Amino acid sequence: MSKSSKVRLGIVGMGGMGTAHAKSIIAGEAGRIELTAVCDRKIELMKPFEDAKHFDDSDAMIASGEIDAILICTPHYSHTTIGIAALEAGLHVLVEKPISVHKADCERLIAAHTNKKQIFAAMFNQRTTPAYIKLRELIKNGELGKIQRINWIITDWFRTDYYYASGDWRATWGGEGGGVLLNQCPHQLDLWQWLFGMPSKVKAFCQIGRFHDIEVEDDVTAYLEYENGATGVFITTTGEAPGTNRLEVVGENGKMVLDGRDSITFTRNEVSCREFCATADTGFDTPDVWNVEIPIKGENPQHKGILKNFAEAILEGAELLAPAEEGIHSVELANSMLYSTFTDSTVELPLDGAAYEAVLKKKIETSTFVKKTVEVTEVADLSGTY
Amino acid sequence: MSKSSKVRLGIVGMGGMGTAHAKSIIAGEAGRIELTAVCDRKIELMKPFEDAKHFDDSDAMIASGEIDAILICTPHYSHTTIGIAALEAGLHVLVEKPISVHKADCERLIAAHTNKKQIFAAMFNQRTTPAYIKLRELIKNGELGKIQRINWIITDWFRTDYYYASGDWRATWGGEGGGVLLNQCPHQLDLWQWLFGMPSKVKAFCQIGRFHDIEVEDDVTAYLEYENGATGVFITTTGEAPGTNRLEVVGENGKMVLDGRDSITFTRNEVSCREFCATADTGFDTPDVWNVEIPIKGENPQHKGILKNFAEAILEGAELLAPAEEGIHSVELANSMLYSTFTDSTVELPLDGAAYEAVLKKKIETSTFVKKTVEVTEVADLSGTY
Repeated sequence: MSKSSKVRLGIVGMGGMGTAHAKSIIAGEAGRIELTAVCDRKIELMKPFEDAKHFDDSDAMIASGEIDAILICTPHYSHTTIGIAALEAGLHVLVEKPISVHKADCERLIAAHTNKKQIFAAMFNQRTTPAYIKLRELIKNGELGKIQRINWIITDWFRTDYYYASGDWRATWGGEGGGVLLNQCPHQLDLWQWLFGMPSKVKAFCQIGRFHDIEVEDDVTAYLEYENGATGVFITTTGEAPGTNRLEVVGENGKMVLDGRDSITFTRNEVSCREFCATADTGFDTPDVWNVEIPIKGENPQHKGILKNFAEAILEGAELLAPAEEGIHSVELANSMLYSTFTDSTVELPLDGAAYEAVLKKKIETSTFVKKTVEVTEVADLSGTY
Repeated sequence: MSKSSKVRLGIVGMGGMGTAHAKSIIAGEAGRIELTAVCDRKIELMKPFEDAKHFDDSDAMIASGEIDAILICTPHYSHTTIGIAALEAGLHVLVEKPISVHKADCERLIAAHTNKKQIFAAMFNQRTTPAYIKLRELIKNGELGKIQRINWIITDWFRTDYYYASGDWRATWGGEGGGVLLNQCPHQLDLWQWLFGMPSKVKAFCQIGRFHDIEVEDDVTAYLEYENGATGVFITTTGEAPGTNRLEVVGENGKMVLDGRDSITFTRNEVSCREFCATADTGFDTPDVWNVEIPIKGENPQHKGILKNFAEAILEGAELLAPAEEGIHSVELANSMLYSTFTDSTVELPLDGAAYEAVLKKKIETSTFVKKTVEVTEVADLSGTY
């Protein structure tokens, strides 16, 4: 490992996200990281980064000695293969979401992380959002008591036909292994398990190409149930504008609502509704409540925050905001939703990763879908995306 | 039929709702109705209404010649039997919700309405709520365009253990034929079909006695899908306080939200998101929107409005706000949600009414549940309920 005061980073995959990360590193916004190498099969995508070494092959970059750490921004399937190669070569690894396309690949990738001195993180940049951090803190502190119900409508992932036509890997079983659940929603699925833990069963209704001419899901309604009976609903689509991002969490002590990412509204019961239910001597009363607005403080550094934390973990032993190992949960949720749809059944968790991999392989093998694509000459500007 | 300028009404079932209706009629709040008879097996419940004839048998009241019309406020199962008897006797009939407990009974009841000169209405008093009337008008006028998604969280039906113990018929298969879906939610299920029409399939997750010691459902999450792919989620429970009543309706032209019953928020796309999706030459843009607040005008007469309209239909041929025939839809939705849970399957609509009736009968026959009850000496004050 380098003894320099900066992490020497190589980025593989110089599409929209890779380019955005490279720019923020060069601009000095991403902490103690030096961009020493970039890698892409399309040579022209590396041109803007003339101070970094250029590679057209990830194995060559991994073996080059030019980097201490790698940031993987390639299409999803290769997260697993490149991640394993990099971990086996002793590099620190930061992988874009999802960490892999399916649970069995996640397990393979995570198994390659044998040397815990190597830092292995995932780009779950929404974990830096102050409102989610605050909500998590409030839940952990028991402010809601036992959680009874969760409802997350996250439908502000609108994407146009042009978007889907802009990359031949996009929205295909072979290219992405799914649609909105694999590309847009890993963030919310990760936040879900980070905030509430994993459910014990999942039933989902995924619609394939409902709003776009694609072979994967662009519309999902999922029901999740926990061991203790707590229920959840997760709704997403790329076909809706203006879209909604509203998370409602109900516990025995009240209700918290995040409508957007900027505030938490807490309707707080003066006594637990369970206690009130059991002890009231009238039929229709409810506990008295407080209407509480919880201000959200702090910056939301997003990708830059994850990059910075990654460097600090390498250089100073800082605790990771998003260990890659935790990335298996969002993949398992996404896979379970698709598997539930394919089999028209309620899936008990943990999901059988091998069974899902077999179903997905079959989807790829039997795909006859011909995707419309357009020639995109410029790298998409993803600076405003999440 | 009487030639008086008022409808001579008899109420059967002088529990909470029957008593509340009687009081508002006597107070002159319910239009051109005269309370000429009341009927209950519990003699003492009729005492406050000394100007009306008292009956302890509904057939006797129906045959008495004292009434032109009957308002049925008995436990749900007898809505069918008393309703049929009253229709066959030539009376006008107003029946509390649900019109019957299950679809097959609804069909029997509706079949008895052969003489269309007899007015036959249902107490869907939430149809008088100005916000729902406005929303319906906006949808019918095409302001939202084609509807894509509906989400109704209606969990402000909190009920205590005392409530369930306050009547031995409550929350039993034999007494009510269900829980929150049959007692509290007929309103919202009726509004759902009134606003959006009937779905083509239903999958629901009902939890039995999750929050109360009862043998029927007190917690429901249901997924509804329409022929054209539109999706819906309906969530209800009597176990949650403070609870939520939030209806979000998304169409291609934008989104309308009713949070409570007092306002409609309309986020309006300048162009349809479907058109925008197909024609944009960028991947991440969304249509420009207007943020619109739609003021809600007018009174909300609730039960009194339905009573008044019932009398006006009889006396002047006014159009019914809530024809009883339409009451079959909310029952079919409730039955489908329970049937889907019992069979752990997605139910295709129309529901097989005979199959559901058989399942329900089995529930009743095999019930071994012993319900805790408390002696309630006063009639519950339902003036604040919906």
